[in-house]
Amino acid sequence: MSTYVVTGCAGFIGSNLVDRLLAVGHNVIGIDDFSTGQRRFLESSLKSERFRLVELDLLDIDALQRAIKGGEFVLHLAANADVRFGTLHPRRDLEQNTIATYNVLEAMRANGINQIGFSSTGSVYGEAKVIPTPEDAPFPIQTSLYGASKCAGEGLISAYCEGFGFRACVFRFVSILGERYTHGHVFDFYRSLRANPNELPVLGNGKQRKSYLYVQDCIDAILLAMEKAPEKFNVYNLGVDSYCEVNDSIGWICEALKVSPRLAYSGGDRGWIGDNPFIFLDTARIRALGWTPKLTIKEGVLKTVEFLQANEWVFGARD
Amino acid sequence: MSTYVVTGCAGFIGSNLVDRLLAVGHNVIGIDDFSTGQRRFLESSLKSERFRLVELDLLDIDALQRAIKGGEFVLHLAANADVRFGTLHPRRDLEQNTIATYNVLEAMRANGINQIGFSSTGSVYGEAKVIPTPEDAPFPIQTSLYGASKCAGEGLISAYCEGFGFRACVFRFVSILGERYTHGHVFDFYRSLRANPNELPVLGNGKQRKSYLYVQDCIDAILLAMEKAPEKFNVYNLGVDSYCEVNDSIGWICEALKVSPRLAYSGGDRGWIGDNPFIFLDTARIRALGWTPKLTIKEGVLKTVEFLQANEWVFGARD
Repeated sequence: MSTYVVTGCAGFIGSNLVDRLLAVGHNVIGIDDFSTGQRRFLESSLKSERFRLVELDLLDIDALQRAIKGGEFVLHLAANADVRFGTLHPRRDLEQNTIATYNVLEAMRANGINQIGFSSTGSVYGEAKVIPTPEDAPFPIQTSLYGASKCAGEGLISAYCEGFGFRACVFRFVSILGERYTHGHVFDFYRSLRANPNELPVLGNGKQRKSYLYVQDCIDAILLAMEKAPEKFNVYNLGVDSYCEVNDSIGWICEALKVSPRLAYSGGDRGWIGDNPFIFLDTARIRALGWTPKLTIKEGVLKTVEFLQANEWVFGARD
Repeated sequence: MSTYVVTGCAGFIGSNLVDRLLAVGHNVIGIDDFSTGQRRFLESSLKSERFRLVELDLLDIDALQRAIKGGEFVLHLAANADVRFGTLHPRRDLEQNTIATYNVLEAMRANGINQIGFSSTGSVYGEAKVIPTPEDAPFPIQTSLYGASKCAGEGLISAYCEGFGFRACVFRFVSILGERYTHGHVFDFYRSLRANPNELPVLGNGKQRKSYLYVQDCIDAILLAMEKAPEKFNVYNLGVDSYCEVNDSIGWICEALKVSPRLAYSGGDRGWIGDNPFIFLDTARIRALGWTPKLTIKEGVLKTVEFLQANEWVFGARD
């Protein structure tokens, strides 16, 4: 059994990952500043003697360096995941994504830890010219501050692999769905419909194509890659091999909630500045390691709706 | 006539650029912290009423914001250009390249300035799989902290183009040579030979292939692109369409200095961790704008040796 450090341990993916690592017998040092993470997501893990929670801001490099002592693997999931409002506070992506990743790497180096998994994003491809987009797509042009900050984090990590003998897996996600999902399309639509089941505002024209992956499938892929990735620096797209339109997703949600709202489109082919009309990733590389997602997009959306129905407290927590 | 802000105005390329801008009648606000820049490189420009020098650290965003008021174009050349010793002080590339570039962008936004030229590097391609390397080469894997920090700067700039209506030209340089050159192979070899003309230590096996561009050709390209680049975000490789081996360069230098040292190779196919065995860029894109370099690599090396012979004070300034 090993000791994993999970940053962003109280977040959507992070808390599910902690549960999984504990379930298979590992020790976990969980780090979160609870700026967006939820203590309730850690209710179960806090009962384990193999879990230690450290509340800190990743910008506090000294505290971070002390906290991760004894770790063997770092799964760095903490981030400002607010892709959409990047232009309202550009410093946030720089600090919470780029500088925080640098601090994680330096804290690892100080502790002699050299294996890291990093949650990047399909947004690093910008408006990809090749779709489905492979990991070695043409040199990207960043279209969002979020994508730019994650791409910067990837670059730092690969430079640490070359310069300091680190071994890394970088995961470029499509949108992830499932239990504890607290931001993004499905969350926003559910919240809107809860407030007003008769009319649903939709950014863009609803024809934006999206690919979603279920969180447990995502975690399967992360743990498999950490074990089997062959290179010192490895990049994996994570996603399903299909996509839906925002309108499909709306249909499934409305069906599950038994509502029939009027759809009020804001118009245009994208939801917001820097939004990608279409992120659809070629996942042949992770599949070659033996991974395959178990849930379809529709099943993932429905699991998410079930979670939100059983946990309406998350809306209060995020409002 | 326009007002240009030049960061790194006392540096090798920056000071040559300032001279050129003043010569053609523009106003220049020059910014430098003189950590590596040389006051003597500004001797001529300081005589011009159209030049204003502001000494500041780009990490001081408030001072920066005040300094660039009235600027119309920003040519952001300030950087930690010490590619080689990145692993000795990883924070330096983060601060002086990535965070400094963020500060420049924010200071521009606060002043309503939205046109920027940025000195990036061919190092952002890592160990390129396609040679000569075009601007849309496969998604790079960073092999140096310097490349990673410059790639992060590029990403920030493109996100500002998308999110804030900036227009940008990013220049990925090969090594630049010529008057006021104060670091890199030719400088190091000249200094070594000056100390001991009988033996020259050479990192690697001397067969590393390098492509060099003469600084005045580089400046021609920058100014042409700033005027004619068609997109909101433009990337241009800058280099010549030939290359030499480090051994060729040594031969030209020794011939010019009339010395015949024994060559002491450290061995291996690269000079240092993160060094690229070969950076050779496809420059079709900048050539399509009508640019062509006037000097060959050999002519550039010889111009550099002439400069160093006439300005041996630079060795003291850098020692």
